[in-house]
Amino acid sequence: MDKALDEEYEVIIIGGGPAGLTAGLYTARAKLKSLMIERSLVGGTIAIVDHVENYPGFPMGISGLELGKLIHVHATKSGLETRFANFTRIEIRDGEKVVRTAKGDFIAKAVIIAIGAKRRKLSIPGEEEFIGRGVSYCATCDADFYEGVPIAVVGGDNVAITEALYLTKFASKVTVVNRSNRLRASPTLQERAFSSPNMEFLWGSVVEKIEGGDLVERIQIRQVKSGEKSALEIAGIFIAIGLDPSTGYLKELLPLEANGYIVTNEKMETAISGVFAAGDIRHNSARQAVTAAGDGATAAINAERFIAQYLVGL
Amino acid sequence: MDKALDEEYEVIIIGGGPAGLTAGLYTARAKLKSLMIERSLVGGTIAIVDHVENYPGFPMGISGLELGKLIHVHATKSGLETRFANFTRIEIRDGEKVVRTAKGDFIAKAVIIAIGAKRRKLSIPGEEEFIGRGVSYCATCDADFYEGVPIAVVGGDNVAITEALYLTKFASKVTVVNRSNRLRASPTLQERAFSSPNMEFLWGSVVEKIEGGDLVERIQIRQVKSGEKSALEIAGIFIAIGLDPSTGYLKELLPLEANGYIVTNEKMETAISGVFAAGDIRHNSARQAVTAAGDGATAAINAERFIAQYLVGL
Repeated sequence: MDKALDEEYEVIIIGGGPAGLTAGLYTARAKLKSLMIERSLVGGTIAIVDHVENYPGFPMGISGLELGKLIHVHATKSGLETRFANFTRIEIRDGEKVVRTAKGDFIAKAVIIAIGAKRRKLSIPGEEEFIGRGVSYCATCDADFYEGVPIAVVGGDNVAITEALYLTKFASKVTVVNRSNRLRASPTLQERAFSSPNMEFLWGSVVEKIEGGDLVERIQIRQVKSGEKSALEIAGIFIAIGLDPSTGYLKELLPLEANGYIVTNEKMETAISGVFAAGDIRHNSARQAVTAAGDGATAAINAERFIAQYLVGL
Repeated sequence: MDKALDEEYEVIIIGGGPAGLTAGLYTARAKLKSLMIERSLVGGTIAIVDHVENYPGFPMGISGLELGKLIHVHATKSGLETRFANFTRIEIRDGEKVVRTAKGDFIAKAVIIAIGAKRRKLSIPGEEEFIGRGVSYCATCDADFYEGVPIAVVGGDNVAITEALYLTKFASKVTVVNRSNRLRASPTLQERAFSSPNMEFLWGSVVEKIEGGDLVERIQIRQVKSGEKSALEIAGIFIAIGLDPSTGYLKELLPLEANGYIVTNEKMETAISGVFAAGDIRHNSARQAVTAAGDGATAAINAERFIAQYLVGL
């Protein structure tokens, strides 16, 4: 009886963002019995993006939700099955991959991990409320909404300062709000930041509240040491305090980067034969919808080849 | 006077397929002065694909020409400039990249090579002679010349079988001439091919000669194992035996794979600082529109970062 009820697939894809959806599209088209397991919403990180402006093929832009749906329809039409469940663990058993979820276990010959990474939030009043209306987590995606207006960037590491520098090409002024009194970004980036004519710094400061009407209008700032408060008028706030790959449960299975990302080669293979990773969860991913989709296709093509070998007993 | 007329850009992208177009979309959106140089037709290899069925976001499929146009419109709207010219060489001069073309030289801080790969020829008697008179490398372009007449397709991979299936809509009969005894095409394509009522297969066979008068009338075929020869009366032959990366002129600049493909790391960086490669031209590319597009975005993001450093004199 033990495992008699496990459901078997050829490929299981964990995560339903652009990487997972595209992987599923490709494995289903390759006539592999394919299951995608998604925790909540098809589309992943882009599902909450109001207007995706940089996905090639949609010159007028498209809502992230709509793009996610289109790829899901495409994959489903090709034969991909979808289950909504929290995924808890992957185990290897006699060479097969067992994917444990809150709604039962699933077995597959190959697994593609495409669970993305969660953007860290400030968890302050106004943050959720103004997402897509002045609160952003991606400069590359949203910079051009802020042409000629003042904005703030929260954070001080390489990613935050890279995003802030990028934003100086668009915004009239970029105010970097940094909790400590120095940046953690590399000396090169610091040099560039300090010589930028339209970048300013609020040191030892945190954002306490985001306010506005229809759109963000200002942020409330507190000096950490003195407790002194002030308001800053801005049209947008970019929150760049890091990503969480939430791969803790994979630690025993796979070697991970110190920050939790999964290392792959250019075929999206991980250190475990038959386990692939694609999209934002991957070390050095460019973290764009189209790069994630590309990763997904590459992972799927190589999973198909892995399984074809598997079936003839290599 | 020497180089006074060289036109300067921040990024030059060579090649206008999905990789080059997406790279241009991203560099233009990053406010970099960007030029794309394309030899002939925007869209690259997909421009000749009748129906792209696996580009995520288009569940009903889309013509390759249309997809190419959409991404080109998208990139152009973002600020990408386009020139149609044959590209002949890249040189490094004082750290800047000089791109030589038949219509003049262009200078840039970074170059993204996205020139794809060229279709291979059989190199048999009659092949060159009958190009445009019965010999074709592009089903989408030439299929309607063969309405109601028998044709042959040489090759057995995804591209060949995709082209052969397309041609069954026009020709009275499509004979696939395949060197080995099985197709390399995907299971899906094989199933479609084997169930097509007007497709036939000549296994373990090669075409030795193309013959005719004004137009192609027949091909001479040899069985590889037995050496047995036969003639097949056809009105057209479509040659779909693979791709060559044609990177010979880059040999002195870059280390290439033995087969001519360009080696990159996962940031699409080549061995030369500021020279990136993306898409089919890249070693280990999965050679799909979406993987090429993903490569293009990754190359563009890293080119932007390269240029930003360049400007402060690193």
